Amino acid sequence: MSITTEAALELGSVLAPRYDTNGLIVAVATHADSGDVLMVAWMNEEALKLTLSTGEAHYFSRSRSRLWRKGESSGQLQAVVEARIDCDQDSVWLKVRPQGDGCACHTGSRSCFYRLIEGGSWSGSSLSRDGGLISPTRSTPHDPQR
Amino acid sequence: MSITTEAALELGSVLAPRYDTNGLIVAVATHADSGDVLMVAWMNEEALKLTLSTGEAHYFSRSRSRLWRKGESSGQLQAVVEARIDCDQDSVWLKVRPQGDGCACHTGSRSCFYRLIEGGSWSGSSLSRDGGLISPTRSTPHDPQR
Repeated sequence: MSITTEAALELGSVLAPRYDTNGLIVAVATHADSGDVLMVAWMNEEALKLTLSTGEAHYFSRSRSRLWRKGESSGQLQAVVEARIDCDQDSVWLKVRPQGDGCACHTGSRSCFYRLIEGGSWSGSSLSRDGGLISPTRSTPHDPQR
Repeated sequence: MSITTEAALELGSVLAPRYDTNGLIVAVATHADSGDVLMVAWMNEEALKLTLSTGEAHYFSRSRSRLWRKGESSGQLQAVVEARIDCDQDSVWLKVRPQGDGCACHTGSRSCFYRLIEGGSWSGSSLSRDGGLISPTRSTPHDPQR
């Protein structure tokens, strides 16, 4: 449905996602229990529709240029507990419960954001791994779309 | 610094953001205390450098095509408590404490994600406002870069 006014877009009750020139919107998945940001991915209209209709997170893989049912090969399905959209309807926030081994990242971490940026200045910045977001039981396969 | 291997990019300790063709990466800001996702925005290299060096969130305004010090006009500065980067270094997660009136959204809400997507199917989906993320004391000015 098209939205003709900024007020309707921002304050209304009509879902009217604003896809970018590639037909995508940003999707942020957080863990429904811990609140940790698990991953940032992209959705096209089909992925959003399937996410809402099935209750399982679907994304659009930019590297593969195809619909991506999260966990389709890894078993790391994401059960959607809650879905939100932001003020200008170009970003989606999903609260999910990861299935399978409970990880969300292809590196074997519970979250893709397992590294902290350290140091107060750019030149001094380096990354440190956060054990709390790394699964001690997983290897690190290299299929970015697991 | 350039990263030459996927392993170094994903498992290393070198900050090497992968900006898109527009020179931007996605930034997700969550509330350091509540864990709520406050906003999704974009950063260019300058915005990320300033965020890390000043401890205040800086973004790149795509609508204004310029650096955007969050809260520069609204007072809704975001004090950065923690910064993380994801596995393939194309998304940043900031844990922040909003300053000023404590809101993050130009609509006067504490979070830009003040609307839930209701309904189990696309055709049945509509939006409902979440009072918990809406400040009862704010009007809704229309400057998207406040």
